[in-house]
Amino acid sequence: MTELEQGFFITLEGGEGSGKTTQINYLSSKLVSEGYQLITTREPGGTPEAERVRNLLVQREGGDWNAMAEVLLLFAARVMHVEQVIKPALQEGKVVICDRFVDSTVAYQGYGHGMDIEKIHEINNTALGSFKPDLTLILDIDAQSGLERSTKRLASQKGYSKTEDRFERMEISFHEKLRTGFLEIAKNEPQRCTVINADQEIDKIGAQIANVVLKELPNKM
Amino acid sequence: MTELEQGFFITLEGGEGSGKTTQINYLSSKLVSEGYQLITTREPGGTPEAERVRNLLVQREGGDWNAMAEVLLLFAARVMHVEQVIKPALQEGKVVICDRFVDSTVAYQGYGHGMDIEKIHEINNTALGSFKPDLTLILDIDAQSGLERSTKRLASQKGYSKTEDRFERMEISFHEKLRTGFLEIAKNEPQRCTVINADQEIDKIGAQIANVVLKELPNKM
Repeated sequence: MTELEQGFFITLEGGEGSGKTTQINYLSSKLVSEGYQLITTREPGGTPEAERVRNLLVQREGGDWNAMAEVLLLFAARVMHVEQVIKPALQEGKVVICDRFVDSTVAYQGYGHGMDIEKIHEINNTALGSFKPDLTLILDIDAQSGLERSTKRLASQKGYSKTEDRFERMEISFHEKLRTGFLEIAKNEPQRCTVINADQEIDKIGAQIANVVLKELPNKM
Repeated sequence: MTELEQGFFITLEGGEGSGKTTQINYLSSKLVSEGYQLITTREPGGTPEAERVRNLLVQREGGDWNAMAEVLLLFAARVMHVEQVIKPALQEGKVVICDRFVDSTVAYQGYGHGMDIEKIHEINNTALGSFKPDLTLILDIDAQSGLERSTKRLASQKGYSKTEDRFERMEISFHEKLRTGFLEIAKNEPQRCTVINADQEIDKIGAQIANVVLKELPNKM
């Protein structure tokens, strides 16, 4: 069993259809086989309270949150998720793999919906202080390919409803803004972020991610 | 009909049992009889989205929000309330009377639950900028009297359930912290805030409030 002293917090980020879920499963298996203790979680959500906020946002039911209100709701959920799930797991020396985190808020509400990014950083600083991921993997895919993959996946899901706000994310221009956002985030924080080309075969992407993660992990042991 | 150029935003604040609801009804009648156009509203709530956030907070259903998450939820609701209800009414030249606003967050989550008040101000600045009430009436009552009034009122309500978080506000020490908080807020912003002794006969309190409000209103016409 490989025990980390302070845990290690990994986030996966990327637009729709970038294959985060598949890669999180792939990476988890790899790390478990290497003897790491880990948890996987997701945002928005991850605690009973935070999942209720997720429902407010995802199932809009005719609701009409503006970008600022969305960001405040996302951080309310995030504060609970960090305090109740992520930090306790890190304190037990576990690897935490999280599907989306602050960067998604910056990409979607900031770059995507045009909210002042500085304000998102202000709320982040007030709510979470200096807490952030040890490593962020940004799965990059061009807008057209991501859109096709994501549409295919959603169409195959039972009970998928047009009221989900994912539907509106399907616009290609929006997807292009997201991609630009994620790449800017990576450029601004090269120490924390690694961009992975997600337009390759799944195994190849998985191998590249495992390589990056395993290279970082021993430094923290 | 008395038309105000930019509207006038009045908030009523105070702990449980301070008589805000009664006084809002009294003040509304008075202003309508003087020919003012007005709306009354309340926090948390005031829009369909914000009422859903109110439900998250009030009906805890075993949930366990921490103070920071509560503040972020309250401001998410508040942003919607300000943008969709309060500002539009002010732009139409109306008087807006609101039952609770930012000061309640400072009093309850800050003074009451011990959250860093500076952080509440930071979130307020990021979310609402310089927007604030033109006049705030703080209904002040000693903890014991407020507690008795509030307990009497709650006991008479049908369907009142112990799961409502109001129940926990019934502790006298908590009520004392709230009172201290509201009085500190008034001391820090004497231009905006007027403290009203709420331990008097209803008509007398009403007359004092009407007096303060009518003295302020003409300056804004």
